[in-house]
Amino acid sequence: MSSHHQSEVHLEFEPIGHIRSPFKEKFGIPRQPGVTQHVTGQIVLPNNQTMKSAIKGIEACSHLWLLFVFHACPQGKWKPTVRPPRLGGNRHVGVFATRSPFRPNPIGMSVVRFDGVKEDEQALYLCISQHDLLDQTPILDIKPYVPYADALEDAHHEWANASWEVCPVTFSDEAAQTLAQRPHTRALLEEILQQDPRPAYKKGKPDDKLYGVHIEDLNVQFQFIDGACVVVCVTPQT
Amino acid sequence: MSSHHQSEVHLEFEPIGHIRSPFKEKFGIPRQPGVTQHVTGQIVLPNNQTMKSAIKGIEACSHLWLLFVFHACPQGKWKPTVRPPRLGGNRHVGVFATRSPFRPNPIGMSVVRFDGVKEDEQALYLCISQHDLLDQTPILDIKPYVPYADALEDAHHEWANASWEVCPVTFSDEAAQTLAQRPHTRALLEEILQQDPRPAYKKGKPDDKLYGVHIEDLNVQFQFIDGACVVVCVTPQT
Repeated sequence: MSSHHQSEVHLEFEPIGHIRSPFKEKFGIPRQPGVTQHVTGQIVLPNNQTMKSAIKGIEACSHLWLLFVFHACPQGKWKPTVRPPRLGGNRHVGVFATRSPFRPNPIGMSVVRFDGVKEDEQALYLCISQHDLLDQTPILDIKPYVPYADALEDAHHEWANASWEVCPVTFSDEAAQTLAQRPHTRALLEEILQQDPRPAYKKGKPDDKLYGVHIEDLNVQFQFIDGACVVVCVTPQT
Repeated sequence: MSSHHQSEVHLEFEPIGHIRSPFKEKFGIPRQPGVTQHVTGQIVLPNNQTMKSAIKGIEACSHLWLLFVFHACPQGKWKPTVRPPRLGGNRHVGVFATRSPFRPNPIGMSVVRFDGVKEDEQALYLCISQHDLLDQTPILDIKPYVPYADALEDAHHEWANASWEVCPVTFSDEAAQTLAQRPHTRALLEEILQQDPRPAYKKGKPDDKLYGVHIEDLNVQFQFIDGACVVVCVTPQT
């Protein structure tokens, strides 16, 4: 990509582990990590002495940074500009001014809440929540969130701010009944759908499409009617 | 490293550019990015249409995250535990509980202040400051700092906090004279040496060693006498 001698370096990395997440596909993953109070998951690491040592003392951290690979994005298909949903999906901005997953090096960076360690014979599990990570995401690195260095008081960003319009979410009788025994899953779905996962250009326009998303072990179908999201049906993934 | 099928993935990345920094060697780089008010530098990208597009709109950001390679650390030499200077350099902690550069995947992550773009025929230069990056560091990615997502109010870390003892710094007459026409360099040196770049176990013990560090185009020699750092001499790097 570059004729600079410093750039003629090929770097090879190997994942240290992977993510277990209720998000089974890219569509539907919240664009804001902060809103996903009900999203739990795990960083799965091999259960061996090396990894046990490598996570020693990690309980000192309330939050972790994860460096990961955007493995569901086709590689080599990045474009220098993207159209962020924040700007209505119709203004072009340079990829380095955004957190878009389509990047020259498809490495993602996300802060997650850290809730403790579990283990079984197969693996070590770092329990996390409030994340926005796809199931099976390969993890490259784990770093502590260090408030004095990472929480900048004087930083600003012109157009990426927290306020989104929240879309009301209702459930059909059938969907409500299916979820009656799974209040956590229902709350998770509400959080996800409140963010309106459709492409930004669909908002505020008539749209009778039936959308589907795979969350946990469920297929969820929903529709947008008069500015509200209606969960039409919820069925087990086969 | 792992027998998990998800980990049998080899990932290849290529730097998008590199860093120009006054820090010419690892020794002396502040362990706290926040204290380096006088440290300026540049992200050097190839000057072509792709990169021009990729940084479009980056002026919206006051700060940038850089993902980079710890290129001065010997590869494949990581150990699962490290002894952070924060803990006095004698307590072992897992590498994932620290920001140590000796990691299974030697990828670093640093937030820097963004001061604007310059260009010439060869390159695009993103001017940065308050960074802690070694000269020639390969850059893998640039991402905007997004305050609502990155500046966590409720995060904590048990032992990595901002308060360090600051070491007084004085200059020999000779060193002061050499730096008389370079007040910015003198201020930079003060900032760096106030942090006491010696290994943590040296602190508070008699130490008559003459230390040297290569900053900008200068060789700087200094000594610790009665708890203060004395810059003994400053000479041009040959």
